[in-house]
Amino acid sequence: MTEAVERLTKKSEDSSRWYLELVRMAKLADYGPVRGTFAIRPYGFAIWERIQADLDARFKATGHVNAYFPLLIPESYLTKEAEHVEGFAPECAWVTVGGDDELEERLAIRPTSESIICDFYRKWIHSYRDLPVLINQWCNVLRWEMVTRPFLRTAEFLWQEGHTVHATAEEAREEALRMLNVYRDCFYEVLAIPVLTGMKSPSERFAGAVETFTCEGLMGDGRALQAATSHDLGQNFARAFDITFLDENQERVHPYQTSWGFSTRTIGALILVHGDDRGLRLPPKLAPTQAVVVPIWRGKNKGEVRREAEALHRELAEAGLRAEADLDEEHSPGWKFNEHELRGVPVRVELGPKDIEKGQAVLVRRDTGEKEFVGRGAAARRLVELMDEIQQNMLRQAEAFRDENTRRAETYEEFKEIIEEKRGFVVAPWDGTEETEQRIKEETKATIRLLPFEREEGKDLVSGRPGKTAVFARAY
Amino acid sequence: MTEAVERLTKKSEDSSRWYLELVRMAKLADYGPVRGTFAIRPYGFAIWERIQADLDARFKATGHVNAYFPLLIPESYLTKEAEHVEGFAPECAWVTVGGDDELEERLAIRPTSESIICDFYRKWIHSYRDLPVLINQWCNVLRWEMVTRPFLRTAEFLWQEGHTVHATAEEAREEALRMLNVYRDCFYEVLAIPVLTGMKSPSERFAGAVETFTCEGLMGDGRALQAATSHDLGQNFARAFDITFLDENQERVHPYQTSWGFSTRTIGALILVHGDDRGLRLPPKLAPTQAVVVPIWRGKNKGEVRREAEALHRELAEAGLRAEADLDEEHSPGWKFNEHELRGVPVRVELGPKDIEKGQAVLVRRDTGEKEFVGRGAAARRLVELMDEIQQNMLRQAEAFRDENTRRAETYEEFKEIIEEKRGFVVAPWDGTEETEQRIKEETKATIRLLPFEREEGKDLVSGRPGKTAVFARAY
Repeated sequence: MTEAVERLTKKSEDSSRWYLELVRMAKLADYGPVRGTFAIRPYGFAIWERIQADLDARFKATGHVNAYFPLLIPESYLTKEAEHVEGFAPECAWVTVGGDDELEERLAIRPTSESIICDFYRKWIHSYRDLPVLINQWCNVLRWEMVTRPFLRTAEFLWQEGHTVHATAEEAREEALRMLNVYRDCFYEVLAIPVLTGMKSPSERFAGAVETFTCEGLMGDGRALQAATSHDLGQNFARAFDITFLDENQERVHPYQTSWGFSTRTIGALILVHGDDRGLRLPPKLAPTQAVVVPIWRGKNKGEVRREAEALHRELAEAGLRAEADLDEEHSPGWKFNEHELRGVPVRVELGPKDIEKGQAVLVRRDTGEKEFVGRGAAARRLVELMDEIQQNMLRQAEAFRDENTRRAETYEEFKEIIEEKRGFVVAPWDGTEETEQRIKEETKATIRLLPFEREEGKDLVSGRPGKTAVFARAY
Repeated sequence: MTEAVERLTKKSEDSSRWYLELVRMAKLADYGPVRGTFAIRPYGFAIWERIQADLDARFKATGHVNAYFPLLIPESYLTKEAEHVEGFAPECAWVTVGGDDELEERLAIRPTSESIICDFYRKWIHSYRDLPVLINQWCNVLRWEMVTRPFLRTAEFLWQEGHTVHATAEEAREEALRMLNVYRDCFYEVLAIPVLTGMKSPSERFAGAVETFTCEGLMGDGRALQAATSHDLGQNFARAFDITFLDENQERVHPYQTSWGFSTRTIGALILVHGDDRGLRLPPKLAPTQAVVVPIWRGKNKGEVRREAEALHRELAEAGLRAEADLDEEHSPGWKFNEHELRGVPVRVELGPKDIEKGQAVLVRRDTGEKEFVGRGAAARRLVELMDEIQQNMLRQAEAFRDENTRRAETYEEFKEIIEEKRGFVVAPWDGTEETEQRIKEETKATIRLLPFEREEGKDLVSGRPGKTAVFARAY
């Protein structure tokens, strides 16, 4: 038997190294030959597929349809909206040769698709009867990043980008908020990540937006991560791309737009929020395998234990669980325990000769490590219940962590101390100027993660001027 | 009321123009700014989503998992397999600039992913215990085509590409055939396209394959279309990319591979096989809308008819049908009939004041044009049945067309006459030489579409040498 189990660095010792090792050891992703590109391996992709299915159903339930737009964007399109080009042009990959020919105009691989989609919308939208347009696209995008990390920051990544068009500013604002809430619900209910929601400060807005709404998660190391954003684009793109429609009064006017995106970056958040020294912890709703049966056999009883493990596996599958039985004969039960903990399987089901004799099985929860004995006949039913309990408990654990690590600062000294020593979210008034925002960033590396929807008044810790609540943190 | 219905060119008059008009008028796709790129509009994409869901379930049922590999492939990777680079390098789009920097090596946007996936497989595969690898990827690919047509031949298109690795040649061959059959089943059962299956002649093989299996469909204009292919790659790529594994005898050997792909091109096939002078005809399994309720009202009874139409719509939706009610007040019923026929909705449900009085509804089938009166209470049940009947009937219609247009040629004169005047598939012996294949192509524009799995012996019509059955046609 091969017993050389590779040791995972402890999260508390070196969380950055822990993260990279875990991504590799759990076979979530692997490095591609081009800087910043990655393959998402089947185990990682199975998680993404479940997130996709959940979000896609939520999009459709809110009236959206899917479509697909071209990958290649002529440079002249990107430059039509001034802020947009400034934000994205420096990080594009450019196609300059097609077949054997030099191209007359460079083509960007889409870093995001507002510019090319607006060109289609210009052709498709003529009258108020054509509105609203509620289209989403699942696709790959590419940004030429200098420093990359699997899932968290990659040159190419997968995402969905919604692009909607509305007759009025109010409808566009409602849509942007509706989709922010769709994201929040998915984070809470499926990823078990209790994100905070709010607005970005102007300096952190999406290039070309009039307002950016954000979901901010708190990672296990106390740093924040922007997990998904929804933008109210106002009429900026409609003006730049000359999208107009005849309104009910037969006047030709510009419509209002939104865009919103959710990417494979969230898999990084999932790892960072829930992972521990033993490896991944996956919420049952996303776990490719929800329960793994590990038979514990010795030479003489192997046949019987294997048969029982297979029978139990079938029962679990019939009960609708994503179950597997680890019948490998090369590795010991202990090795398998480690392996499935590393992979974040929510429950391990141990089954040995004694258990068979007693008509029981042993359930071991990944979220708490708790062991529970259950009658063999009740195992499937209990596991179905446990999936719900674990899903709920993981959210509660993450909420408790977030709440413990959200602190008010009364003075700038205190602010700096928290950021330096404890990290987490720091709540403090901000006077609304880029000047103080910038100074805080330079002096503490903390940025404004969001402006809450309900903001209290107070005195800015840096300038002493009147301000309103902002949430700061060091971020990924 | 606006009654200006745009007229669709007749399929029999000019099938090429008919095709382009239909794609535009049914809002399936639209031209992008870069040559050969297209947006797949929501109505077209909804068809693709259903094909995807069906195929994906079949892949998973045969043990495959999904993953995602990088878009960008270094030029040196493409050149590792000699035939492969010859086949694909001339039609690549090349990234030469990233951010502000000229790249040292050009990067191809994947035209297909064998080369980059092999690089990962080299790292992932070590022992016979790692085999088989059964991975599929859904993604976009790009080939710099000179002449393009929406869906049928586009620079960028969407597809799935399966890439599997096996310990033995036999297993790889079995896998390639298994996936060919998965495709065939999907064509028959879902797209209602009775494809022929067989092998490609060596000159038509995928660049780098030892055998290419193909599904060939016969389009409504008598031309063939290669609808999906499955390749036995032998050890060609494993050798070129140095993929090896320790077999059960502890010997280091090269594994055997397959790849197989199915693309948005099939939407073009769907249009060409089933479409008619009135527009699309969609098989119920793929139709975004399976039944549309069209109320027929006049001023005084509008309220009642509308209410009844809405109620019927709800009933149909509850019965599991993808139904819609066209309650638009701008257009006449006649305009709507044309519109939904153009969109290929399988059944139109007419509901007027007389029908309400008589407690009935009128069902009009898109596949046959037949009208059927049905008691109001039985409408949903009858429609569910009809979906099956229409699905079956469309396949039968297409089979009849294919059989009527599959002819044996006894002499080369006859062969040329059929190809020139009737088109369709021509079955004739082929002596297996590239010389005769090439001569037939030059003289008749017909190519060998496939070599059937069961081949009869006979005399080659051109050379007079002994040959075996091949199926020829002019192709898209």
